[in-house]
Amino acid sequence: MVPKGKIDEIIEGYDLKDLTIATLCSHSSLQIFHGARKMGFKTLGLTISHSTKYYDAFPLAKPDKIIKYADFDEMEERVGELLDENVILIPHGSFVEYMGSRRFGDYPVPSYGNRAVLDWESDRDRQRQWITSAGVPMPRLITDAREISEPVMVKYNGAKGGNGYFIARDYPDFKMAIDPSQPYTMQEYCLGTRYYMHFFYDPHKKDGYLCEQGGSLEMLSIDRRDESNIDEMYKLGSIEESKRHGLYPSFVVTGNAPVVIRESLLPKAFDMAEKVVNKSYELFGGMWGPFCLETVVNDKLQFKVFEISTRIVAGTNPFISGSPYADLIYPGLSTGGRLAMGIRDAAAGGYLKDVVS
Amino acid sequence: MVPKGKIDEIIEGYDLKDLTIATLCSHSSLQIFHGARKMGFKTLGLTISHSTKYYDAFPLAKPDKIIKYADFDEMEERVGELLDENVILIPHGSFVEYMGSRRFGDYPVPSYGNRAVLDWESDRDRQRQWITSAGVPMPRLITDAREISEPVMVKYNGAKGGNGYFIARDYPDFKMAIDPSQPYTMQEYCLGTRYYMHFFYDPHKKDGYLCEQGGSLEMLSIDRRDESNIDEMYKLGSIEESKRHGLYPSFVVTGNAPVVIRESLLPKAFDMAEKVVNKSYELFGGMWGPFCLETVVNDKLQFKVFEISTRIVAGTNPFISGSPYADLIYPGLSTGGRLAMGIRDAAAGGYLKDVVS
Amino acid sequence: MVPKGKIDEIIEGYDLKDLTIATLCSHSSLQIFHGARKMGFKTLGLTISHSTKYYDAFPLAKPDKIIKYADFDEMEERVGELLDENVILIPHGSFVEYMGSRRFGDYPVPSYGNRAVLDWESDRDRQRQWITSAGVPMPRLITDAREISEPVMVKYNGAKGGNGYFIARDYPDFKMAIDPSQPYTMQEYCLGTRYYMHFFYDPHKKDGYLCEQGGSLEMLSIDRRDESNIDEMYKLGSIEESKRHGLYPSFVVTGNAPVVIRESLLPKAFDMAEKVVNKSYELFGGMWGPFCLETVVNDKLQFKVFEISTRIVAGTNPFISGSPYADLIYPGLSTGGRLAMGIRDAAAGGYLKDVVS
Repeated sequence: MVPKGKIDEIIEGYDLKDLTIATLCSHSSLQIFHGARKMGFKTLGLTISHSTKYYDAFPLAKPDKIIKYADFDEMEERVGELLDENVILIPHGSFVEYMGSRRFGDYPVPSYGNRAVLDWESDRDRQRQWITSAGVPMPRLITDAREISEPVMVKYNGAKGGNGYFIARDYPDFKMAIDPSQPYTMQEYCLGTRYYMHFFYDPHKKDGYLCEQGGSLEMLSIDRRDESNIDEMYKLGSIEESKRHGLYPSFVVTGNAPVVIRESLLPKAFDMAEKVVNKSYELFGGMWGPFCLETVVNDKLQFKVFEISTRIVAGTNPFISGSPYADLIYPGLSTGGRLAMGIRDAAAGGYLKDVVS
Repeated sequence: MVPKGKIDEIIEGYDLKDLTIATLCSHSSLQIFHGARKMGFKTLGLTISHSTKYYDAFPLAKPDKIIKYADFDEMEERVGELLDENVILIPHGSFVEYMGSRRFGDYPVPSYGNRAVLDWESDRDRQRQWITSAGVPMPRLITDAREISEPVMVKYNGAKGGNGYFIARDYPDFKMAIDPSQPYTMQEYCLGTRYYMHFFYDPHKKDGYLCEQGGSLEMLSIDRRDESNIDEMYKLGSIEESKRHGLYPSFVVTGNAPVVIRESLLPKAFDMAEKVVNKSYELFGGMWGPFCLETVVNDKLQFKVFEISTRIVAGTNPFISGSPYADLIYPGLSTGGRLAMGIRDAAAGGYLKDVVS
Repeated sequence: MVPKGKIDEIIEGYDLKDLTIATLCSHSSLQIFHGARKMGFKTLGLTISHSTKYYDAFPLAKPDKIIKYADFDEMEERVGELLDENVILIPHGSFVEYMGSRRFGDYPVPSYGNRAVLDWESDRDRQRQWITSAGVPMPRLITDAREISEPVMVKYNGAKGGNGYFIARDYPDFKMAIDPSQPYTMQEYCLGTRYYMHFFYDPHKKDGYLCEQGGSLEMLSIDRRDESNIDEMYKLGSIEESKRHGLYPSFVVTGNAPVVIRESLLPKAFDMAEKVVNKSYELFGGMWGPFCLETVVNDKLQFKVFEISTRIVAGTNPFISGSPYADLIYPGLSTGGRLAMGIRDAAAGGYLKDVVS
């Protein structure tokens, strides 16, 4: 991981009145650039081979400048250009995934948020340790298949992007489906409705929903992910029958839809988010900025958190002009806009070093 | 029910320039307070033990003041405080359900809308009588299980919050599932897409869509409810198979998603809503303010109304900053805002007594 | 088809400072009138027997004037009135379907867009020829049922509005379901998530996403259609079982819900839309204005286009006040507003003849 001292040094050399917000040209970049422009920043798109012509169609989100690299090696070699432009990077899921979390961690350009979170998010065991030790319920891990007494989600090791999963209702179901030659992990399958809740933690904001850590916790929006092919698979008939025809469910995210959650679940949602934030300070110096709790609500109105994303998620994309939640705080603002606001306030308040790493 | 004369007397004692809008801290209270603030009202949250810290996260919806009661008994004893603040209550589904509809009916604080509606909504038979006598189609009641010739929804008496229901496709299906030791009712299961249509009837507005009753009918938004666990149950495989594994569908509402309906269905939707309004005046002195027709549209584009809610529903929560329908009347206004507008206009127009009970 | 020369002559007689935007009172007419009013146009609703009272409920979308015809014959006879009002027609799906595409093609009133597209859209073979020759992937046609090696969508000839379709997983499945006495066509059933992408091509706009044809391509919004009864059919149990109970899936559109698509799919989406536009100029003089690519995304993140609509679709109705895409170009604008903007700009720029036919 790039030493914090090095990042601080870079920030000291920056012209704070002329910062540029940069990110990889994918995922939620339209929203990030749109928000950055709203807050008065220059914007810079970074891309490896991707077509970026689509930006032309969205003038209010088009970055001022695009740099095309042949590969991440070149992006690493040409760091100087970014520093010359006083760049603050905004990490998003695709940025970290394509570059690799280790490599992103080492990339010596100031990045909004705490890079130390990468180690705790990318390793499933540590992620589970973080969330459960915070007192937030997760789906139960099952280590012995003979213990299956309720539906389970089975995931082959190395499964990527929604393939290589299956759901079994019980042990015989599992026996029928499993390929014993492949290593796998198993967890309780939580039946219910899914809510991907988009929070923002600002350690320097001193009003609003204050956490033990002293900063302010916001909820900006909630989405539900579209998953191909599972979402429309029932149209073919039952999944059991479909499997006999060689058709298997998959869970690849293709888009997002806006939702709201029962108001009476909000106290619990905030409580979970606060606990995860508080624990992050204890474990690795804190998580700030946008994060997402990926949850299921069962028919007893209980939450389970099946994953955390510790940066902006693509599920915020339906909310480019606000959401039923953001509009109660900052009317019309997106998570991308909120990110830029955080950087703008930090630069103006003299604590930019504190929000980057 | 608190006598209308008593409510009128209270209103006479109110300072109409200093009204406070109050509701129970749940359900759609963020929206109600947000709307009330927009219209210049003071706001007051009433709560029994609930955590209300989540309001801190939403400054534009946070009530000016919160009163915490130990229980509804205390809320009844401390009525004087509310009258001192010139409170108009906004009833919502959770308010009436938690307090109990009889108890809410007796609570001597002016409440927006007609309390007489409670008797007609809370009793399923009277609700059916009201809607069907208005000429609005409902799912057929089935009294003899041997008559089942199409899918039915079976509901055990006392079933609450989405549990204790099941769907049977025919008589053998029913026989297999029914617990004959428990009393139940049965109605035709209407297969189709669900639209929860949010109307507002203003008896004092003299333009727009005018009803026989003389007032104006508005459509403010439409949602679809998320229900746990039925919404994602198909992912486990067929429901028949799942039942053999001891997994049964349930219908607990956990959130809401925005939708719009085919424009060619709007004339029929307004017609049904107007009929229900007109009949309410004939039966019990009228229903005004927000109400929701909970409908299914089958593949012949026919509506069935399976329930009516006679006050603001949580399905309006996605529309805190307007909706594709409200934006054609009052751009950016929520149902909560529309409620506050109704009270503001009534107070300014000298007919506040006419809209409360 | 009405000769272009005749339309040009009519336009020459028009008072360009006093144009009226007219459409049939259904489908997306609220949005069209709302958008036209925003751009300063007079508006006129045309209707055959439909109730139009619902417009009263939406004052910002209510047309200035409504003409009620007994039937389309009368609408044809009374063409003079429309020309006197300097009418530009906006075609939508129901307008063309109810009037008949041939009859609409012959109707001698200036209509936004290129009427020549009607021949290529209404004939399934020509539509397929257009799209596939443009290099855009469509579901594979299957001519011999014995070749079925994956799920297929079977459609009886003359099937209308979502009835008369069925899905078969393989040949035995097909054999069981098919009524051999009826002619049918078959195509690959593309399993995945559906995105109905709303584009707008403006041949006179010279910035933004420029196409080979020289004009500018915009994406304004994306919806997913609600279909009755298929959307909720799984609640009855498996479709196989339901069929044994005499319950068959149908696919009748009843409404629409807003969605967004993965940002990394946008380059591909624009590429497909541009190819279809470019090819339209080669084949029949071009398609401009709003159009919709109806797509499925499978779990390999590949698109298939199963249909094109060459005018405004009802799926734009959730976006009356903007969308996550339109807000990055024209904040708060609907497709109806964009249509009116196109006419306004053409009238002001002296090229109105070029955008009507």
